[in-house]
Amino acid sequence: MWRLYQFPLCPFSRKVRLVMGEKGIAYELWRENPWDMRDEFLNLNPAGRTPVLQDPEKGLALSDSRAICEYLEETVERSPLIIGTAAARAEIRRLVAMFDEKFFADVTGPLLQERMMKRLVLRQSPDSRVLREAMRLAHDHLYYIDYLVDTRPWLGGATLSLADLAAAAQISVCDYLGGLDWSGHEQARTWYSVFKSRPSFRPLLAERMEVIQPPSHYADLNA
Amino acid sequence: MWRLYQFPLCPFSRKVRLVMGEKGIAYELWRENPWDMRDEFLNLNPAGRTPVLQDPEKGLALSDSRAICEYLEETVERSPLIIGTAAARAEIRRLVAMFDEKFFADVTGPLLQERMMKRLVLRQSPDSRVLREAMRLAHDHLYYIDYLVDTRPWLGGATLSLADLAAAAQISVCDYLGGLDWSGHEQARTWYSVFKSRPSFRPLLAERMEVIQPPSHYADLNA
Repeated sequence: MWRLYQFPLCPFSRKVRLVMGEKGIAYELWRENPWDMRDEFLNLNPAGRTPVLQDPEKGLALSDSRAICEYLEETVERSPLIIGTAAARAEIRRLVAMFDEKFFADVTGPLLQERMMKRLVLRQSPDSRVLREAMRLAHDHLYYIDYLVDTRPWLGGATLSLADLAAAAQISVCDYLGGLDWSGHEQARTWYSVFKSRPSFRPLLAERMEVIQPPSHYADLNA
Repeated sequence: MWRLYQFPLCPFSRKVRLVMGEKGIAYELWRENPWDMRDEFLNLNPAGRTPVLQDPEKGLALSDSRAICEYLEETVERSPLIIGTAAARAEIRRLVAMFDEKFFADVTGPLLQERMMKRLVLRQSPDSRVLREAMRLAHDHLYYIDYLVDTRPWLGGATLSLADLAAAAQISVCDYLGGLDWSGHEQARTWYSVFKSRPSFRPLLAERMEVIQPPSHYADLNA
């Protein structure tokens, strides 16, 4: 059985879990704190990042969340998530990159640093200036999601795709950390609320990271 | 004909140019300084980054260098660059991600900021502490390339792949900016020297960014 090395608030692990959930692939969760820099983990992934997807029986260890998603897409036919013409697939991949890189750099990364790493690992107080800037930039990203939802049924096009999963993965971590203000973003909120009800998403919403509690609306399917 | 929006020292544009060169795809270079934040460019790519690959006749504009490379791989059969079993393809994509993200964050990004942006745009002096740290981290990355070259014919496996192109794109920008010390990295140096001789690489080595001159060994095929 697949083993997924991850921690509950890793957005890239969440994306892979959503893909595996949509495709009905069984896996075990293995808790890994990448900041512990365990030698055994660095042997699996020299980049020292979660997620790593391992099949110990086959001696296979896959790293980098986009490489893992492409692997699962190529090897499991059920519920394709990078779909359509080459141009449509490029559009899905463009959005995945935008959420993985820009949304993460602007919003999820700073929130994780200030509200998780500083509390659990560094034992420091969060920097309110950094938090304000992340929440300001979150609005720009939510406006872009509003725009996408205004022009298409799903973020990447006519059907659910990896773009929705990548976005929901980032957003769910930010929402857990109380970093999103949904007011004025009805389209994004409605898209996310529909997404929250998917069976692939339920296990993530039920999980908790030690010490850090999400706001009350976090796992509420009607919020 | 394709138009590639780029600037000479953009490592991600270089990766796409190497792919197009290997595959024999014709294109025009369109100079774009993403730091100018031109409205027309932001309309092509809301993320505001180079490269963008546009086909004006088809009304198609592709963004994100990995999405562009996957598109070219899917639509042009010649010289496949993401090859082999699903596991082999995942390994190629893992390495591409490592060079695009970690090598860039550790080395290319800081060098571009200190030696290009501060000179051309910000009119500031480079921070020697940042440069020293980037050059220290460059050694770790070159050691990893030494290790890869010790264990495989090419970085991603038995044949030339997108992993080599992604690595060469980053390395060539760092080398242009005088940020690489090759001493003690014979394997990496030999691999790069072979790569420099490829026809796809020659046009890049001949180009210059205004004001900033590369060291004398930069375009020397025997160095």
